[in-house]
Amino acid sequence: MLEVTSIQKGIVLDHITVGNGLKIFNKLMLDQVDYPVVLLINVPSKFMGKKDIIKIENNIDIDLDFLGLIDHNISVNIIEDGALTQKKKVAIPNKVKGLFSCHNPRCITNFDDYVKPKFELVSPSTLSYQCEYCEEITEYRL
Amino acid sequence: MLEVTSIQKGIVLDHITVGNGLKIFNKLMLDQVDYPVVLLINVPSKFMGKKDIIKIENNIDIDLDFLGLIDHNISVNIIEDGALTQKKKVAIPNKVKGLFSCHNPRCITNFDDYVKPKFELVSPSTLSYQCEYCEEITEYRL
Repeated sequence: MLEVTSIQKGIVLDHITVGNGLKIFNKLMLDQVDYPVVLLINVPSKFMGKKDIIKIENNIDIDLDFLGLIDHNISVNIIEDGALTQKKKVAIPNKVKGLFSCHNPRCITNFDDYVKPKFELVSPSTLSYQCEYCEEITEYRL
Repeated sequence: MLEVTSIQKGIVLDHITVGNGLKIFNKLMLDQVDYPVVLLINVPSKFMGKKDIIKIENNIDIDLDFLGLIDHNISVNIIEDGALTQKKKVAIPNKVKGLFSCHNPRCITNFDDYVKPKFELVSPSTLSYQCEYCEEITEYRL
């Protein structure tokens, strides 16, 4: 078994759906940081069969909406002085601002740098979001 | 500190130069396997200041020439029944077959699928290899 002892201070992203670990690692640009990070893939899990885990030995701000959009199974554990101080579940966000582009090539959000795309969730099962500007539906894909 | 307890069976690539861990992970296509793998980056190291580590919970064949080409600092630890059974140092290979392409666009190895490029090391400091077919020098880049 591959086990990782607790980190002293930082964030553990647990219960990541298998296959999403590296994608989240890349999205968070963790290959460019200077503090320790661990990516574990295909870790045996009681509840999920297998899971991915990311451990970040640093206090960074993570956008929970962003994580919820990418993978709503994730649990976020905040570690301080080697102890778990906070446990958060993420959820699929109802409103999203600026995390992806509108699929409508003629939407103003794809032309104007000052207009951030805003979306409202219309279907959680397909991660379909409606653009607040042009009303086009965009399905989010990691 | 991020520590990982020993694996039961498999391979540990230790002393990877910081920044190369993810590249080697990708080159070995470890995101596509179904057994546990751990990538550790920026791990504190007595000798190197910081290092990357990859732990693979499976007995896979790893091409030592390939690893030596990518990063000749790597040490390869083979683990069986939770114990270290073999420790290998990699080295920059003197002869290389098929691991990269010849930079000469007119070299036959870039046209003929049946001719694998073969190279001989001419400068270890720049990882310069001479093609056995066209004699062009190619500098290897990860």
